[in-house]
Amino acid sequence: MGLDTAATKPHERLADTLRDEMTAVNALIRERMTSEHAPRIPEVTAHLIEAGGKRLRPMLTLAAARMCGYEGPHHIHLAATVEFIHTATLLHDDVVDESGQRRGRPTANLLWDNKSSVLVGDYLFARSFQLMVEPGSLKVLDILSNAAATIAEGEVLQLTAARDLSTTEDVYLKVIRGKTAALFAAATEVGGVIAGVPEDQVRALHTYGDALGIGFQIVDDLLDVSGDPKSTGKNIGDDFRERKLTLPLIKALARANEDDHAFWKRTIEKGDQREGDLEHALTLMERHGTIEDTRREALAWSARAKDALTLLPDHEIREMLSDLADYVVARIN
Amino acid sequence: MGLDTAATKPHERLADTLRDEMTAVNALIRERMTSEHAPRIPEVTAHLIEAGGKRLRPMLTLAAARMCGYEGPHHIHLAATVEFIHTATLLHDDVVDESGQRRGRPTANLLWDNKSSVLVGDYLFARSFQLMVEPGSLKVLDILSNAAATIAEGEVLQLTAARDLSTTEDVYLKVIRGKTAALFAAATEVGGVIAGVPEDQVRALHTYGDALGIGFQIVDDLLDVSGDPKSTGKNIGDDFRERKLTLPLIKALARANEDDHAFWKRTIEKGDQREGDLEHALTLMERHGTIEDTRREALAWSARAKDALTLLPDHEIREMLSDLADYVVARIN
Repeated sequence: MGLDTAATKPHERLADTLRDEMTAVNALIRERMTSEHAPRIPEVTAHLIEAGGKRLRPMLTLAAARMCGYEGPHHIHLAATVEFIHTATLLHDDVVDESGQRRGRPTANLLWDNKSSVLVGDYLFARSFQLMVEPGSLKVLDILSNAAATIAEGEVLQLTAARDLSTTEDVYLKVIRGKTAALFAAATEVGGVIAGVPEDQVRALHTYGDALGIGFQIVDDLLDVSGDPKSTGKNIGDDFRERKLTLPLIKALARANEDDHAFWKRTIEKGDQREGDLEHALTLMERHGTIEDTRREALAWSARAKDALTLLPDHEIREMLSDLADYVVARIN
Repeated sequence: MGLDTAATKPHERLADTLRDEMTAVNALIRERMTSEHAPRIPEVTAHLIEAGGKRLRPMLTLAAARMCGYEGPHHIHLAATVEFIHTATLLHDDVVDESGQRRGRPTANLLWDNKSSVLVGDYLFARSFQLMVEPGSLKVLDILSNAAATIAEGEVLQLTAARDLSTTEDVYLKVIRGKTAALFAAATEVGGVIAGVPEDQVRALHTYGDALGIGFQIVDDLLDVSGDPKSTGKNIGDDFRERKLTLPLIKALARANEDDHAFWKRTIEKGDQREGDLEHALTLMERHGTIEDTRREALAWSARAKDALTLLPDHEIREMLSDLADYVVARIN
């Protein structure tokens, strides 16, 4: 990595390297988000798609395809597919979470209504399936349809496990696999599949995306209990106030004495939160070492992601993907 | 058709002829509606799937495959796919329509919540895509993913056209294609595709399902303004009270004088409905001959469905499908 790029964030270097392909992906997204008959569809979709997200998921598909030597046109379709699936889940998530803001702007369910978000989300799911059929690869279809099922299953599990103090780390892992890691893993995996790499490399791409997504999501939990709001843009304690079972909390629960347990029961299960509770919650997590343990787990997932890359072709993009795995956990160092 | 079956409804004769295959479809549905991790999924799904629907859509797939001489196992997968898509759309429809009842039972969104209906619907969509990938036919995937997009587009169009007096017959047709005909058409078409019939027969199967679905939906509109509640199970005037732009109403609007238009504007657009309004609405529809014209259109779609069948192999199931096209419009004769 040269001096000129040392200061640049890895996803920005990826975006730079894949600039032409990302332009093609964005053009395809705009082309396919239209509807001949229902103008509400592109209106709602544009609100999300053009809100300036990092396009990390489609970039992973392009990166994997390029790193694996793919020279055909279909990685563009698959990258757009992945972004459509992501956008559809965001629309439905905001309905389910009754969210009013996303990426600093009012959500679609607020600007239009829940009905539009549900139905436009369905349309984008259907569009994503149309797109993924076009490359004509059954293996790709298998991977993406499995990912879609894992995502939805994770969402239902999150809903039913909400505020449930008996949530285990195992359930937590399934939820974040659904929320984040399944689409990351599918995004990288299909890039290798269309490039026709051998099965062990396909598995390595899956492992990379899966571990990257899990590490990313665990760090998100950590920033809520120990980050610097100025640099992370996250407020300390939002998850506590929303009574979310994050990994530091699950670990604290496993080590709770009777008093601690009564505290968690009151604040998380019953939602009776008072002045000073957040500070006490943070103290309990610190005291039992759960924040440090959670941090170590995030780092382990990042290391696992990088480790998987060693099986893949030596390529400048491989370095960027490795740096990306460092970057997602760097915020907690 | 023998005397012993003359009194039996055509969908019951189809169910009888396809009994073993429907048993296999139901077993596959039960197998695939499970979730290893989220028990909420099979609970919600079973509530709908086991509510005793007629399974008309999967039956159309089985019927088309059998009529076209298919002997493989994949029509079972495709029939289950079609039922999963249908169930997912019902779950989302009930959220969007804020319905409290379906098939005489409380809806899932009422028994659980809107969140569960949205997310379990997403899961069933994803499951349907997993199922449809299994037969390994790209042509089938193309047909079903296109149908899914048409369904969602029709739903959005219905939402944005609601209570809009400028809704044209053209928009109405697109809405009911999305609501009903697209899945009927895909259901029959894929049955022929996996049987490997020539392209003109595939097109005929599509036309049959499309016309059957449109005829079926138009009759549904008619029963609301002219049916016998005792035999149809539909109350006269429900659509008027819910301010739906049904075909008889759209036709009445096209022929409305100034007074009529003010009446429709008050009752449908503004929703200000008073004693005697329903009777006046029915009188306006009668007076302009719109009920009779709508009836003729339903019969024309039925005839078109039967006409398409003439291109298909001579088979006992073909007779049943022809009778089915008669049956869906027979309620208005």
